[in-house]
Amino acid sequence: MVKARFLDGYSSQISLIEDQADRILSDVGIRFEGDNETIELWVRFGARVVGDTVYLNGADLRRLIRERAPRNFTVLARDPNEDRAIGPLHPPVLAPVYGPPNVLLRNGQRAAGSRDLYREMVSMADGFDAIGNTGHMLCVMNDVAEDDRPLEMARAHLECSGKSFMGSVASPEGALAVIEWTRANIDRRKPDTPSCHLLHLINSTPPLVYKSNPLKCLRTVAEAGEGIIVTSYMMLGATGPVTLAAALAQGYAECMAGMALAQLWRPGTSVVMGLFATQFSMRAMQPWFGDPLSQTVQLYATALARHLGIPIRGDGGITSSFLDDAQAGYEGGRATSIALTVGCDFILHAAGWLESGRTVSLSKFERESAALSGQLAALADFRTDENENRRRLSIGLQN
Amino acid sequence: MVKARFLDGYSSQISLIEDQADRILSDVGIRFEGDNETIELWVRFGARVVGDTVYLNGADLRRLIRERAPRNFTVLARDPNEDRAIGPLHPPVLAPVYGPPNVLLRNGQRAAGSRDLYREMVSMADGFDAIGNTGHMLCVMNDVAEDDRPLEMARAHLECSGKSFMGSVASPEGALAVIEWTRANIDRRKPDTPSCHLLHLINSTPPLVYKSNPLKCLRTVAEAGEGIIVTSYMMLGATGPVTLAAALAQGYAECMAGMALAQLWRPGTSVVMGLFATQFSMRAMQPWFGDPLSQTVQLYATALARHLGIPIRGDGGITSSFLDDAQAGYEGGRATSIALTVGCDFILHAAGWLESGRTVSLSKFERESAALSGQLAALADFRTDENENRRRLSIGLQN
Repeated sequence: MVKARFLDGYSSQISLIEDQADRILSDVGIRFEGDNETIELWVRFGARVVGDTVYLNGADLRRLIRERAPRNFTVLARDPNEDRAIGPLHPPVLAPVYGPPNVLLRNGQRAAGSRDLYREMVSMADGFDAIGNTGHMLCVMNDVAEDDRPLEMARAHLECSGKSFMGSVASPEGALAVIEWTRANIDRRKPDTPSCHLLHLINSTPPLVYKSNPLKCLRTVAEAGEGIIVTSYMMLGATGPVTLAAALAQGYAECMAGMALAQLWRPGTSVVMGLFATQFSMRAMQPWFGDPLSQTVQLYATALARHLGIPIRGDGGITSSFLDDAQAGYEGGRATSIALTVGCDFILHAAGWLESGRTVSLSKFERESAALSGQLAALADFRTDENENRRRLSIGLQN
Repeated sequence: MVKARFLDGYSSQISLIEDQADRILSDVGIRFEGDNETIELWVRFGARVVGDTVYLNGADLRRLIRERAPRNFTVLARDPNEDRAIGPLHPPVLAPVYGPPNVLLRNGQRAAGSRDLYREMVSMADGFDAIGNTGHMLCVMNDVAEDDRPLEMARAHLECSGKSFMGSVASPEGALAVIEWTRANIDRRKPDTPSCHLLHLINSTPPLVYKSNPLKCLRTVAEAGEGIIVTSYMMLGATGPVTLAAALAQGYAECMAGMALAQLWRPGTSVVMGLFATQFSMRAMQPWFGDPLSQTVQLYATALARHLGIPIRGDGGITSSFLDDAQAGYEGGRATSIALTVGCDFILHAAGWLESGRTVSLSKFERESAALSGQLAALADFRTDENENRRRLSIGLQN
C-alpha cells in the first residue's frame, strides 16, 4: 500500500500546524464538560484549570502520546483469521457507514432502521473481502428499546460475522457491557503485541469541547484496555474555522487532548486519530460531504498522524446525495480514493453512506464493498515494504 | 499541488522496470511500420535494424530524452492569460474527453457528433476554470467531410475559446495545416523558455509497434517545433501483458522509443509521457475503464516520468458505464482523484467521457468540469513550493 512515505517533505508545514495547535491549547484551552474525574486528572497532570476549561502544553501531550500509544495495534476478531492490524505498517482496514437512522432498500423504498436490517447488513459486510471490520450502528435499531441496543448490535456482529467490529459509546455502562460480552466471545489469550477487542468512536464537540458522555466512555474504554478512535469532525465555517489551516490547528488540538487523556487513564491505550472537516454550505445550512476541500484536510491529517506516530482514520464514501447516483458515486469515489492513496489506516463509512449520513443504501453498500475489494487488491501491488514490492514486480516481469 | 515528492522511495522498483524495459528494447525490439524515414533515422542513430524492427539501447534513449526534452514547458493560447505551463513545477492542466463519435444530449437522447455540438462543447470547456486546455476531437464531426475536419475543429477551438488546445493527427498534412493556422492566430513572439502552440496525441499500437501515420505525424509535428504526448495505452491481457509489472515495462519501452524519436527529429521537442493500461474483461471482450488496477499503473507511470524528467499524462473521468450513473461517478471520480493526487501534469478525458469513450455526455461534461474546479482549488492548498505553502498556511492561521 501507498503508506507513510506519502507526506515526506511537508515537515515545516506540519510544524506550523503543531505550533498553532499548541497556542490554542495553551491560550484558549479546551472545555471538558460535566466530568469531574477528567478535570481532576488534568489537575494531577499539572494543567492549569479554570472551571471546566483546561489549558494544556502541546509538547507535553505529544510526548505522552509518542511514549505510550502504540504505532500499530491489532483488533482481535471472533475468527482469529479475521484479526486486523491497524497502523502504517499494515493495509488499511475498512468499516461500513456508522450512524444512519434510515435505510434505503433495494426496491427504492425508505424504511426506518431495524434489527433485521442491521443483521442483514452485518452479513453483507461479512461477505466482502474489502470490509475488514464490520463497524457499529450500521443503522439505528428503531424497533429495539434504546437501552437494549448496545448488546443487540454486538449480538448481530458476533452472530452474523467472525470479523472484528466496534464497541458502543451510548453510555459507559453500555460500553462496558459490550466489552465484557465481546471478550467472552473472543475467548483466547491476547497476543504480546498491542491489541484490543473493540474500537470505540469518541468524538469531540467542536469547537474545543468534550461533552460529558464521551468523556465518561473514553475513561471506561481506556481503563478496560480497549481501543479508541478520537475524532474531531468539523464543519468549516460552522463548528470549525473557515480556513483550512486554522481548522487543522483546532482539530489537531482537540485530537491531541483526547488521545493524551486516553494515555493518562491507561498508558498504552490503542488510539487512532480522526481529524476531518467538511465544508458547510450556507445555502443548504448543512455540511457538504465528499467536498474536495476535505481531501486536503485528509492529506494534512495523515501527515500530522504520521509525525505523531499513531494510526490515522480516513473517511470513505461520504456524500450529500439523496440517491446512489452520479453525485454519490463521484463524491464517494473521490473521498475513498484519497483516503486510500494517502495511506489512512482505518477507513470508516467505506460502504453504504448516503444522504449526509442519515441513510444507508443497501445497493450502495454492495456496490462500494465490491468495488473496494478490487481497489484494495490493486493498491496492494504498491506496498510499504519496498523489498516485497520489488519481489512482486520481479515475479510479474518473469511471467 | 501534491507533486513530485509523491513517489520518492520507490527508486529500486523504478530501476527494475527500467531494466526490463531495456531488455525488451534490446532483445525484442520495436516495429516501426511503413515509414522509411524513421528507419533511416534509427540507423543513423546507430541502432540495429532488421526489416522494420529496431533494437535499441534504453540507457541511450533515456540520456537523449534527459538531455534534450524540457522538464516543464508552456502551451501558448490565443488569450495570453490562458497560456498553460505543463510539468512538475506547475498545477495540472486538464482537457476534455478525446475521440467519441456519439453525444449523449441533456434530454437523454443520443446523437451523432456534429459541428454544432462540437462548438457547444468547446464553449462549455471555455467557461470552466478547471479546463485549462480545450483538447481535440471532443466529438467526431460526422457532418463535416473527413478531410475538412482538422481545420474545422481548430476553427471551433479558436473561435469559441481563448484557451490552448490540441492539434490534429489525422494526417501529416492535416497536422501541419492546423499548426500553421493556429500559429497565425496566436500571433506573438514565443517566450525564451520552452513552449509550443499545440499538443499532439501520438499513440503507439501495443504491443511494441508504431504505425505509419503516427510516425509521419510525429516527424511533422516535431520538425515544426510543436508538442507531443507519446502514449502507450494498453489493455492488460490483450494488447499488453496481463501482469502489472510486465505491462509497465512494455509501455515504458514504447514510450521511450517514441519520445527519443521526437528528440532525434528535433532536439528540445516538448514531450509528455502517457503510460496507461486498463484491465481487459474477458467476459465483455472489451477494456474496463476506470478499473482499480489502472490506478496503480498511473502511480508507477508517474514515478517513471519523474525519474526521466519529463511531464506525465494522466487520465480523468474514464468509465465503461453507459449512463452518467453511480458507476460512472465512482469510476471517474476514482480515476481523476488518483491522477490529481499522484501529480499528473496533463490530464486528458477529464470531462465528458462515457461508455468506454464511445460517447461524450453533455451533463457529465458539466458535472465533472464544475466538480474539478472545486477540487483543483482545494488541492492548490497543497503546493509543490513548500515556502509558498507555509505562507498560505500562515495566512489561514492568522485569520
